[in-house]
Amino acid sequence: MQKQDIKLYVDSQFTSPYAMSVFVTLQEKGLDFDLLTVDLEANAQHAHDYAATSLTQRVPTLVHNGFALSESSAITEYLDEVFPKQAVYPKEIHARARARQVQAWIRSALMPIRVERNTQVIFYGKKLEPLSDAAKAAAGQLFLVGESLVPDDAENLFGDWSVADLDLALMINRLALHGDHVPEKLSRFAAQQWQRPAVQLWVNQARPAL
Amino acid sequence: MQKQDIKLYVDSQFTSPYAMSVFVTLQEKGLDFDLLTVDLEANAQHAHDYAATSLTQRVPTLVHNGFALSESSAITEYLDEVFPKQAVYPKEIHARARARQVQAWIRSALMPIRVERNTQVIFYGKKLEPLSDAAKAAAGQLFLVGESLVPDDAENLFGDWSVADLDLALMINRLALHGDHVPEKLSRFAAQQWQRPAVQLWVNQARPAL
Ligand SMILES: [Ca+2]
Ligand SMILES: [Ca+2]
Ligand SMILES: [Ca+2]
Ligand SMILES: [Ca+2]
Repeated sequence: MQKQDIKLYVDSQFTSPYAMSVFVTLQEKGLDFDLLTVDLEANAQHAHDYAATSLTQRVPTLVHNGFALSESSAITEYLDEVFPKQAVYPKEIHARARARQVQAWIRSALMPIRVERNTQVIFYGKKLEPLSDAAKAAAGQLFLVGESLVPDDAENLFGDWSVADLDLALMINRLALHGDHVPEKLSRFAAQQWQRPAVQLWVNQARPAL
Repeated sequence: MQKQDIKLYVDSQFTSPYAMSVFVTLQEKGLDFDLLTVDLEANAQHAHDYAATSLTQRVPTLVHNGFALSESSAITEYLDEVFPKQAVYPKEIHARARARQVQAWIRSALMPIRVERNTQVIFYGKKLEPLSDAAKAAAGQLFLVGESLVPDDAENLFGDWSVADLDLALMINRLALHGDHVPEKLSRFAAQQWQRPAVQLWVNQARPAL
């Protein structure tokens, strides 16, 4: 196999759930990569040299043998195609479709949860105000979908682990790790996902003070 | 081949760009399907019978031989796997990754354009206030990416047509069809995409009065 040169650009606080999704994918696949940080607080994603790498000036950005790619779900799909060992998407066509649905939904819905329980809650232990009615409604939607998709044993969504498990667990943990009410099966699911070694590697990154 | 039963649920105003993306994909593939509408104004996506079909209570939802799937990019990926003729994603791995990046970016970035130039501009000819500074900045970002990705002849992004062409053209047309300034190559690109018969079938749906 050709020598692989893989770089992953993430936010310097290690709080982007999308950067985490790609980081965990690389770890699950056992790939060697260089982890580089972009200081979003200082708007470094718009600096000339980063803009030359990332067309859309966003994190995460993967650079694989000179090919630069942004948008986390596009990156994890790409990694699954180039490095199929330890697949991060289900092989069965309906399960794979559902995994993609979960990923796209997590990224485009549930906005009040994402705002009122930003990921500093998860990675810095930040405590925030009680949920607004809009966020409670979004939580209800999350629980409805979660209760339907998570199996009774609270293990992976689709048998083997997939990156959709991480994405859903992170969304649940915005609430669970803050101490908000979460249904028992879903809090067990999220807690189990959190124990994966690849997940813990991200959780335990050394973070700058807020 | 098994008899195919395909239903597509879209918004009753035919203004959802994501519903359009799936509709056009089905048309490009020459598939026979039933088009059903959900009245979002009346919150019909939350009604019991629709919620029983669409787990996340969103449009578009595809139902294929009883399998219900939401999130437009998950649906178009699924359709490309089940009905590979007339592919809507590039075959080449880097082009396919870039197409997925464009789709994910269109769905998660450029929010001020999506708000200030909602798709009633495109499908109802609505005229709105001049762009805010935030929307002008987003437009600058869109033009930067568009100028980089659209080839000099202003034809498809990746040689053969892909669903990313439609998604990018729609974002450009939020501005171009409103009369806002758009660079010449990008306005030519969007205008050419708009002439595709499958696109025109959506544009020409009979819409209820606003
Ligand atoms: Ca290395
Ligand atoms: Ca199990
Ligand atoms: Ca039919
Ligand atoms: Ca050409």
